Amino acid sequence: MPQWLDQTKQEDSTVHIVADENIPLIEQFFGEFGEITRLPGRSMKASDLSNADILLVRSVTEVDASLLADTPVKFVGTATIGTDHIDTEYLDSKGIGFASAPGCNAQAVVDYVLSALSVIVDSRGIEFADLSVGIVGVGNVGLLLRQRLEQMGMTVKATDPFKEEEEVGELTSLDDVLSCDVVSLHTPLERGGEHPTWHLINEARLKQMAPDACLLNACRGAVVDNAALSAHLKQAPDFVAILDVWENEPELDLELMELCSLATPHIAGYSLDGKMKGTELIYQAACGYFGLPVRLKLGQFLPEPGIRRVDFSAEVPIHQALRTAIRASYEIRVDDGVMRSVMRRSQNLRESFDRMRKDYPLRRDTINLRVGVPSRAHDLQDVLEATGFDVRSK
Amino acid sequence: MPQWLDQTKQEDSTVHIVADENIPLIEQFFGEFGEITRLPGRSMKASDLSNADILLVRSVTEVDASLLADTPVKFVGTATIGTDHIDTEYLDSKGIGFASAPGCNAQAVVDYVLSALSVIVDSRGIEFADLSVGIVGVGNVGLLLRQRLEQMGMTVKATDPFKEEEEVGELTSLDDVLSCDVVSLHTPLERGGEHPTWHLINEARLKQMAPDACLLNACRGAVVDNAALSAHLKQAPDFVAILDVWENEPELDLELMELCSLATPHIAGYSLDGKMKGTELIYQAACGYFGLPVRLKLGQFLPEPGIRRVDFSAEVPIHQALRTAIRASYEIRVDDGVMRSVMRRSQNLRESFDRMRKDYPLRRDTINLRVGVPSRAHDLQDVLEATGFDVRSK
Ligand SMILES: NC(=O)c1ccc[n+]([C@@H]2O[C@H](COP(=O)([O-])OP(=O)(O)OC[C@H]3O[C@@H](n4cnc5c(N)ncnc54)[C@H](O)[C@@H]3O)[C@@H](O)[C@H]2O)c1
Ligand SMILES: NC(=O)c1ccc[n+]([C@@H]2O[C@H](COP(=O)([O-])OP(=O)(O)OC[C@H]3O[C@@H](n4cnc5c(N)ncnc54)[C@H](O)[C@@H]3O)[C@@H](O)[C@H]2O)c1
Repeated sequence: MPQWLDQTKQEDSTVHIVADENIPLIEQFFGEFGEITRLPGRSMKASDLSNADILLVRSVTEVDASLLADTPVKFVGTATIGTDHIDTEYLDSKGIGFASAPGCNAQAVVDYVLSALSVIVDSRGIEFADLSVGIVGVGNVGLLLRQRLEQMGMTVKATDPFKEEEEVGELTSLDDVLSCDVVSLHTPLERGGEHPTWHLINEARLKQMAPDACLLNACRGAVVDNAALSAHLKQAPDFVAILDVWENEPELDLELMELCSLATPHIAGYSLDGKMKGTELIYQAACGYFGLPVRLKLGQFLPEPGIRRVDFSAEVPIHQALRTAIRASYEIRVDDGVMRSVMRRSQNLRESFDRMRKDYPLRRDTINLRVGVPSRAHDLQDVLEATGFDVRSK
Repeated sequence: MPQWLDQTKQEDSTVHIVADENIPLIEQFFGEFGEITRLPGRSMKASDLSNADILLVRSVTEVDASLLADTPVKFVGTATIGTDHIDTEYLDSKGIGFASAPGCNAQAVVDYVLSALSVIVDSRGIEFADLSVGIVGVGNVGLLLRQRLEQMGMTVKATDPFKEEEEVGELTSLDDVLSCDVVSLHTPLERGGEHPTWHLINEARLKQMAPDACLLNACRGAVVDNAALSAHLKQAPDFVAILDVWENEPELDLELMELCSLATPHIAGYSLDGKMKGTELIYQAACGYFGLPVRLKLGQFLPEPGIRRVDFSAEVPIHQALRTAIRASYEIRVDDGVMRSVMRRSQNLRESFDRMRKDYPLRRDTINLRVGVPSRAHDLQDVLEATGFDVRSK
C-alpha cells in the first residue's frame, strides 16, 4: 500500500479511482495510481464511491456532501474549467484535495475566434492586420487571444477590471474596447458584485458600437442581452453577430440564430487536445497533492491529427497561407452549417442542441498542424508561428 | 530561312511573331520559331504586323481584314476558348492558319464549381454524395465536371441537344435536369437557332426548380434572365443563386448581387494553368500547321504553386479531407468577399468590375495540389483522386 494512502482502508492495499467514462486518457495518466473504475457521470451516486480514493468527474456530476459523505474519497478532480458543479467549501471543510483544469480549452476557443475572424476579413475583402479587435475579459482565453492577435499584427484593445497591466498587458475602458471593429467576449457570467457581466452587452452598448462592427460571444450566453441583440440586428443590417453561446441555451431564440452571421452550439472550446489537457492538469494536481513525481506528459499520448501538414512555397501570398492554415485547422462555417440545418428542422430544441454537442467531432488544436515553409520565407514563418502553428522550415 | 515560310519575304530569313504582351510563356513555347515582339493587345494595328508571320492574341484584339490585309501573317492563334473576336471566314478565305484554345480553362471552372458545392454542402450540414447535380451543356467544362462529380459519388443528370450519349454519357431532358438539388449551366450564349440559350433559365424554369434548389451560372450571364432570378429570389428565400457571370456585365444588377449566396466577377475560368494551357494549345496547333515537331510540354514550365501539399492521416474523415483540399486549392468565398466589398463601394461599376478581373490573382488548378495520404487509406485516396488532386500515397 502506498505511503500516501495509509491512514484509511487498512484492509485493502489497492488505490481505487472512480472516473467519468467520458474523460479521455484516464488509463494512460492514472494507471500507475491504482485501479480505475469508469462510470457514466450523470448517474454517479454515493454507493459507487464506497471504495474510492480518487474521484474524477466532468461537469455533469454534482460533487457535494450527498455524494461524498461516508466515502473514503481524498481527492476530487474535474477535467473542466468550470467548477459550478463542485461544492468546494464542503471539500475544504473535509480536507479533500481538489483540482480543476483552468485554461485547458483556451487554445480551442482562440482557434474558434481566429476562424471567425478569417471569415470576417474574407467577407470584407481585407486582411487580418486591417482589423482592430476589442477583448472583454483577459483571463485564460482572453490573454492567449490577445497574444496571438497582437503577434499577427492586429490592433488589440482589452478591458478587465480584475487584472493588472503587468500581468496581461495594456488595459483600457469598456467604452474604448467597444470602438473596435470586432468585440470578443471572454468573461465569466456574474450577476452580482462590483462588475457584473450579466447583460454586459445591452441595447445601449450595442448602439455604441459601429453600425458595421462585429460582436463575437463564445463565453456565456447571458453576457449579451439576446433580445436587445436581435432588435439591434434588425435595424443595423451591416452589424455582424457571431454566437457560440446563447441566453437560455439549449432553448435559444431561433430568430436570433437566423440574424447571426455565424451560429454554433457552444462548441468553441471543444477540442480533443483541450479535453486531454484537462486530464493532464488534474493528473499533475493529483501528483502534487499526493507528493508523487509528475512522470507523464500529454505529448506521449497525443493521437495523430487528421490533417497532418500543409506545405507552402515561397510563392504563396501571406494572407492566403494564413487563412488556408487556419481553416484547414478549424472551419467555423462547417459547424455553423450543421447548427442551422439541425435547429431549423428541430422538433425539440433542447434535445437537438445537446445532441449536437454530444456528437461533436472533437477537433484538434491549431498547434498540432505542421506547416512547412521554405527556410528563406522569413515573414511567412513569423506570421504562421505567431498564429500558433507548428512551423517547420526547410 | 525555314522551309515552311519560303513563299514570301525572300529578303528576310527570320520568322516574326507578334504576340499580346499578356499571354504567358510565349517566349518559352515560341522562342524556337523566331523573333518575338510583344505588344499591348488592345491597341494592335495593321502597321504593327507589317513584318509578322505569326499573330498571337487574346480576346481584346479584333482580328479581321482591317488588321490583317497587306500583312504577311500566315497563322493566327488566340489563347482563349472564345473566338468571337476573330473573323474566321476572312482567315479561311485567305488560307491563313488559325487556332484557338478550347477547353483550356475547363479545369478552373470545375474547381470553381467544386468550391461552390463544398460551401453548399457545409451550409446544409450534408456531404457531397447527398447532392444531385444537373448539368446544362456537356462541352469541355460540362463534361469534365460531370466526370469529377460522378467519380466523387454525386448523382448527375445532364442535358445537351448537340451531343451524343456515346460521347458524353447519359443525357436527359432539361426538365429532368431542373429537378436536381443544384443546376449548373455550361452552354454558350446563343440567341438563335433551334436551341437558343438566351434566357434559357426564365421565370417558368425557376419555378420548376425546388424552392431550396441552387442555380449556378458560370457560363454566360444572359443564359439566365437576371430580372426573373431577382424576382424569384425575393419570394423563395431558400433558393440559392451562385453567379459568376451577369446579364449586362460589367454593369450588373447590384440588387441581384446582394440576393445571391455567392457572387464573383466572371473569374471562374481564371487560372494561371488555364492561361498557360492556352499558350500550349496554340503552340501545338502552330507546330501542326507548319509541320514542325511538338517538342515542348507545359509541364516543363509550370511554376511552383503557393500551396504545395496537404498531408492527411488515416484519422481524417473523408468529407473533411475533401473540403479542406478543395478549398485549400480554391476558396470561392474569398472572391465573393472581394466582389461584394468592391461593388458596394463602387462609383463606376464598369471600371470596378473590369479592374477586379484585370487584377485577379491567378490561381492554380486543383491538379497542382499534391495530397499525401497513408498508403492503407484506399477510400480516401480514391475520392481525392476522383476530385482531381495529385494524390501521393506513402
Ligand atoms: N464557448 C466555449 O466552449 C467556452 C470554452 C472555454 C471557456 N468558455 C467561457 O469563456 C469565459 C472565459 O474563460 P476563461 O477560461 O478565460 O476564464 P477566466 O476565468 O480565466 O477569465 C475570465 C476573465 O474575465 C474577467 N472578468 C470578470 N468580470 C469582468 C468584467 N465585468 N469585465 C471584463 N472582464 C471581466 C476576469 O477578471 C478574468 O480575467 C468563461 O465564461 C468560460 O466559461 C467558453
Ligand atoms: N466564367 C468563366 O470564366 C468561363 C470560363 C470558361 C468557359 N466559360 C463559358 O462556359 C460555357 C461553356 O464552356 P465550354 O468550354 O464547355 O464550351 P463548349 O463549347 O465546349 O461547350 C458548350 C456546350 O453547350 C452545349 N449547348 C449548346 N446549346 C445548348 C442548349 N440549348 N442546351 C444545352 N446544351 C447546349 C453545346 O452542345 C456544348 O456541348 C461557354 O459559354 C464559355 O464561354 C466561362
